[in-house]
Amino acid sequence: MTSVPERLHLYDTTLRDGAQTQGVQFTTSEKLRIAAVLDALGVDMIEGGWPGANPTDSEFFEKAPRTRATLAAFGMTKRSGRSADNDDLLAAVLNAETPAVTLVGKSHEFHVRTALGIPLDENLDNIRQSFAHLRAKGREAIFDAEHFFDGWKADPGYAIACLHAAFAEGARWIVLCDTNGGTLPQEVARAVEAVIASGIPGDRLGIHAHDDTGQAVANTLAAVDAGVRQIQGTLNGLGERCGNANLVTLIPTLLLKEPYRSRYVTGVTEEALRGLLRASRTLDEILNRVPARQAPYVGAAAFAHKAGLHASAIAKDPTTYEHIDPAAVGNVRIVPMSMQAGQSNLRSRLAEAGIVVEPGDPRLARILEEVKEREGRGYAYDTAQASFELLARRLLGLLPSWFEVERYRVLSERRRNARGQIVTVSEAVVTVQIGDRRITSFHENVHRPEEGDPGPVHALSQALRADLGPLQAHIDDMRLTDFAVRIVGTGTEAVTRVVIDSEDGQGREWTTVGVSGNIIDASFEALVDAITWKLCRDAVPVPG
Amino acid sequence: MTSVPERLHLYDTTLRDGAQTQGVQFTTSEKLRIAAVLDALGVDMIEGGWPGANPTDSEFFEKAPRTRATLAAFGMTKRSGRSADNDDLLAAVLNAETPAVTLVGKSHEFHVRTALGIPLDENLDNIRQSFAHLRAKGREAIFDAEHFFDGWKADPGYAIACLHAAFAEGARWIVLCDTNGGTLPQEVARAVEAVIASGIPGDRLGIHAHDDTGQAVANTLAAVDAGVRQIQGTLNGLGERCGNANLVTLIPTLLLKEPYRSRYVTGVTEEALRGLLRASRTLDEILNRVPARQAPYVGAAAFAHKAGLHASAIAKDPTTYEHIDPAAVGNVRIVPMSMQAGQSNLRSRLAEAGIVVEPGDPRLARILEEVKEREGRGYAYDTAQASFELLARRLLGLLPSWFEVERYRVLSERRRNARGQIVTVSEAVVTVQIGDRRITSFHENVHRPEEGDPGPVHALSQALRADLGPLQAHIDDMRLTDFAVRIVGTGTEAVTRVVIDSEDGQGREWTTVGVSGNIIDASFEALVDAITWKLCRDAVPVPG
Repeated sequence: MTSVPERLHLYDTTLRDGAQTQGVQFTTSEKLRIAAVLDALGVDMIEGGWPGANPTDSEFFEKAPRTRATLAAFGMTKRSGRSADNDDLLAAVLNAETPAVTLVGKSHEFHVRTALGIPLDENLDNIRQSFAHLRAKGREAIFDAEHFFDGWKADPGYAIACLHAAFAEGARWIVLCDTNGGTLPQEVARAVEAVIASGIPGDRLGIHAHDDTGQAVANTLAAVDAGVRQIQGTLNGLGERCGNANLVTLIPTLLLKEPYRSRYVTGVTEEALRGLLRASRTLDEILNRVPARQAPYVGAAAFAHKAGLHASAIAKDPTTYEHIDPAAVGNVRIVPMSMQAGQSNLRSRLAEAGIVVEPGDPRLARILEEVKEREGRGYAYDTAQASFELLARRLLGLLPSWFEVERYRVLSERRRNARGQIVTVSEAVVTVQIGDRRITSFHENVHRPEEGDPGPVHALSQALRADLGPLQAHIDDMRLTDFAVRIVGTGTEAVTRVVIDSEDGQGREWTTVGVSGNIIDASFEALVDAITWKLCRDAVPVPG
Repeated sequence: MTSVPERLHLYDTTLRDGAQTQGVQFTTSEKLRIAAVLDALGVDMIEGGWPGANPTDSEFFEKAPRTRATLAAFGMTKRSGRSADNDDLLAAVLNAETPAVTLVGKSHEFHVRTALGIPLDENLDNIRQSFAHLRAKGREAIFDAEHFFDGWKADPGYAIACLHAAFAEGARWIVLCDTNGGTLPQEVARAVEAVIASGIPGDRLGIHAHDDTGQAVANTLAAVDAGVRQIQGTLNGLGERCGNANLVTLIPTLLLKEPYRSRYVTGVTEEALRGLLRASRTLDEILNRVPARQAPYVGAAAFAHKAGLHASAIAKDPTTYEHIDPAAVGNVRIVPMSMQAGQSNLRSRLAEAGIVVEPGDPRLARILEEVKEREGRGYAYDTAQASFELLARRLLGLLPSWFEVERYRVLSERRRNARGQIVTVSEAVVTVQIGDRRITSFHENVHRPEEGDPGPVHALSQALRADLGPLQAHIDDMRLTDFAVRIVGTGTEAVTRVVIDSEDGQGREWTTVGVSGNIIDASFEALVDAITWKLCRDAVPVPG
């Protein structure tokens, strides 16, 4: 039995439902960056936010990013007691001028009565009028049927009538939402079958699942199996409570695994799929989150095999303990002691930095040993590519010394000032040797506690970058954009890992790492690496 | 249609498959602590490790924890070319003297040929002889059929023959393992149906799922739906690669949600279920992991509702946006602005600290405001109960002042010593006022970088606790057991949160928190709270 694969549509709501996550607050520029990532990945529709609900969402649509994907604005069906024309909330959504508009509306009689407090018919009428209005305005219309599955269990007739109210008025997609996330896959399948039997075909239906029982992915696939053809989800499963269906997990399952691989096509190409890990990490980075090590497909541990039986079988044939090829999603296999696998990875990472080393060069093994040994002590070269590059260059004899830090001294103090107020003082003194010059720089912060003292590491960074003599002009456009501290290990084994993100006037971004029991010393190491990488990358001559 | 609920058996492998996770290395005492947590939760069987494979696993069984749950030792079926009696690996497993023994064996012809390199019949014979041996020794026998689902897809006849080899020799449980984690729920269901059709009843079958497609929970439930009656999994889904099926997600689904709630019973009581969050957090704490905020049921965000439409509906009726009552799993609802819900939580937390406040006392609102305001600035009073208690006492006028820190000064330096070696120096000076006495203390660390300098916070802590005059005797038995740093927020909004765990000679453990842009100052705040809590709890008289 061969048949033409059917098209599955991917609808991303990272910028709207994802932004509902506690503690998440995207800036407009972050939203634009995420939209670009989604577009490169190949999703069909990007829901950008709720215009009018907050300034960021409105501004995002004003900037109108040019994407291949269709942009959708989100809002809700018109309120009771006014016409669709006269609902200012709805007007604000339409004013965003997006080709597609998604409106959420009630489909659970309990919510119509409890949350809205209106008669059931009035809700149907609000849905009808809202979608008639969208049709009159020529927009592609999507109906998010809130609480659909709970509503269907409570009163299937009413829940399905709500869907038909939008469908009859021309809504392109009717999206079945498991708003509370408590529905299980078999219930999803039964409900979808009932909706299709009621006369709405599967290629007009979408699924919007949440992960409150850890089954958002399974619920989504159960809906697809039952006939649904639009999938709503977010990058990394970002979303309120336990999150939304994770597109980063769903996309490779749809593209790589049977029966989905043969039955369906999506807008995601094989090449875009290889960028999946990068897309996932970009969101983590924007959110300053630690990437989930165990995330399916893209987690750092997703293809990590602990030494022993598995590792030796993997060496004979990777398919023995891997369900897909990690490279397909941009991930890599981690096999302890596997020098063979390690060396080819290493060569490609060095090539990224413009360093070409022949296969079999004995120095590759030395770099690998050193990386492994340092990772055992808490370094993380996965993220800190710039520090990795410097380490490799050092071992390859390709790293000149631009400057030496002779000494630094950092002081942090809490005391009373002349007026008897408590102040915190952070000061740093750094002495560097550059060629035959010796330069000492100083930086001091004095703050009242409530003013937000940036602390001793900031003072050290300022002092270090205050005067590097002949090198100074080369680092003036450098800026530290982020500073992350993590304690690695526990108890007496614990060390502090500091990861610093930097950028420069040419728009380059790089990441360095330092590790020590002493947080000041770990920060110092990452700071020196950050400056050194910049000098190295710009091929700055070593002062005589 | 009513029927007697069937018994589902829960088999935990946190201590064995969970311990296969990269970076996880339990000590024996940690294993004993986890076993106690599992036992209190009510799992039926605890797999403690592989005796003989490493010293920790062997030692765990030597200590033979007394649990209500059955203890199982793990190993593999006998190797070719020797009898079960003469296989030293198998002997080591039996020597652990556990009532139950689990042996993993091959059931995928590809693995028999590729990884073992033996004829297919020989593998069947190894399985048969191994289980005949376990029967002769009177142990409850469990067969983990490795790669069963992949094997069944490749050669169903052989895969099922492997199961029958163990079953015919009296294995109590035949466990179908999705070792590579790539199997999808519908395939799991079909395979289980085929196994049952071959003559092994569902109440002799187990499921062992991995989360490589984000569906370990769904695969487990699909297997149960198809007839399987033993569930293998781990706390928090710990396990190699993407982890094992998460018992912390499965247990509440089985106990609280239909159709499972009516159809099955487990060994977990409703009361034990209310300890689920605590069980999950205990493992995180042992692993020094940040608890997953979005974890189903037990995540801090699992019942967190962002302000707006949802929050106002929740106030009318919590079931509008919640699929279960959070208290059922020991979790709490987080609703911004919900003063009403907040006050009753607050009173119960105060009661835990022995502080009784009448409902409606206006000071409750003040405490809540202060907690909210501080949490907005990065404090985390969820974990830092001791700091919460001090904050509340302060606002209630119930906190005397035992000492005042007049000033502190911390210095961190990197320089060359007299022999020209690089050293890092951390020193701290603290001046405290106690009654009419003024005491200045000093502490210094000097280290070579490779020696592992504990850093400036350690020096500050040592100086602060070096001499508290008349109070000193009361804090001599106090010890800092953990120190965790987290950066909260990003960019210029970022602050440092320091959480300190302390314990004393009476076996009490308490947690305090400090927040500042300056890590030294944040640490200082948490240290002072730690000492103050101890003085308060011991009702130490305030020096005159």
